[in-house]
Amino acid sequence: MEKEYPKPSVTVDIIVFSVQNNDLKVLLIKRAIDPFKDNWAIPGGFIKLEESLENAAKRELKEETGIDYAYLEQLYTFGDVNRDPRGRVITVAYYALLDKESAKQIIKADTDVSDVAWFSVAKLPTLAFDHSKILEYALKRLKWKFEYTTVGFSMLPKKFTLTDIQETYETIFNKKFDKRNFRKKILSLGILKPEGKMKQVSNRPPEMYSLKKKIGEVVGILPSQ
Amino acid sequence: MEKEYPKPSVTVDIIVFSVQNNDLKVLLIKRAIDPFKDNWAIPGGFIKLEESLENAAKRELKEETGIDYAYLEQLYTFGDVNRDPRGRVITVAYYALLDKESAKQIIKADTDVSDVAWFSVAKLPTLAFDHSKILEYALKRLKWKFEYTTVGFSMLPKKFTLTDIQETYETIFNKKFDKRNFRKKILSLGILKPEGKMKQVSNRPPEMYSLKKKIGEVVGILPSQ
Repeated sequence: MEKEYPKPSVTVDIIVFSVQNNDLKVLLIKRAIDPFKDNWAIPGGFIKLEESLENAAKRELKEETGIDYAYLEQLYTFGDVNRDPRGRVITVAYYALLDKESAKQIIKADTDVSDVAWFSVAKLPTLAFDHSKILEYALKRLKWKFEYTTVGFSMLPKKFTLTDIQETYETIFNKKFDKRNFRKKILSLGILKPEGKMKQVSNRPPEMYSLKKKIGEVVGILPSQ
Repeated sequence: MEKEYPKPSVTVDIIVFSVQNNDLKVLLIKRAIDPFKDNWAIPGGFIKLEESLENAAKRELKEETGIDYAYLEQLYTFGDVNRDPRGRVITVAYYALLDKESAKQIIKADTDVSDVAWFSVAKLPTLAFDHSKILEYALKRLKWKFEYTTVGFSMLPKKFTLTDIQETYETIFNKKFDKRNFRKKILSLGILKPEGKMKQVSNRPPEMYSLKKKIGEVVGILPSQ
């Protein structure tokens, strides 16, 4: 088999999203090596033969950004023939969602990487390889996922208010939702467990909730909005 | 780069679905070569360095089954370390949907393949590699896709009746839907274009429709069923 089939290289790339100050951010690294030296890119790298794709994604994320926990899901595999000047490189893209606290983790630069920074998805730099196209696809899929599944709750703390949910959705979709309709729809899904009133708030403390379902389950959150 | 990173092999596999006599079928090939010689498997094979992933999927489908047209969409990339006894092989899985007429295309066996046949998903043989797991995932995703997108219409002729749609959905979900609610929901989506009454039917000819949207668009077809 070794001689019959010339092999492509395989990488993983991880698009890391977080919401900060009601702004959707993506984590990018600055490349310290060629090709595309000094260009911003999505974190990632070559897989090792003895690790699964998901473990490769976790390892690269940790090595290049210091992040060691995030909701991680495979997004799509990009394999256009000329997407990498080094030869045939197929990349398995993952997306990762961080909650606000995890997004504050110290982010560090690896040897292959000279800088790491959060960028607003509304103000992105030019990216290396086909990473602009990959990021555009990731944003589209992220919106679908928010509409139809519980992935969005991975960006919230374990206990949250209905306002927390609405603000996160408004940030992802970059629009306002009617407060009454949004709450009614979310509560009608039967996915939330009441956790009592928020503490340390003197006047009209809001209700706290936790998620009863697994992150990523298909529940049809916003199809009628 | 060549020496630094030992490379995995990359294959594509294509899970081909069609509905025949109100039964969901999948197209399988019998392997003529080792490993898993004489076992049934999902059609597929190694990618060539000069072809895109999607073109590799189309080529393998044509070579192994004779099918040269189907709705094709990337499903997921499977890369567990020990999924192939030949070494590290990562496979990019696609699913293909055929309409009834295309499913009647003569299916042929390639040199690597000693037989090709349709199997009911309810009565599957033991499959080679991790193909049972891949097929199980494909079935789960197929149902989600039918719930939230227009992919199901790729299994219908260009002009169809509301009964055609309902029967296809009932086959995929293996359950009956209430006729009145189903029709009301489908018509409320605004995705159908009326095409007049069916011809050559004497008594109460049914209305024909075509799809106004692209195949695969997200429209939220069945979330409330």
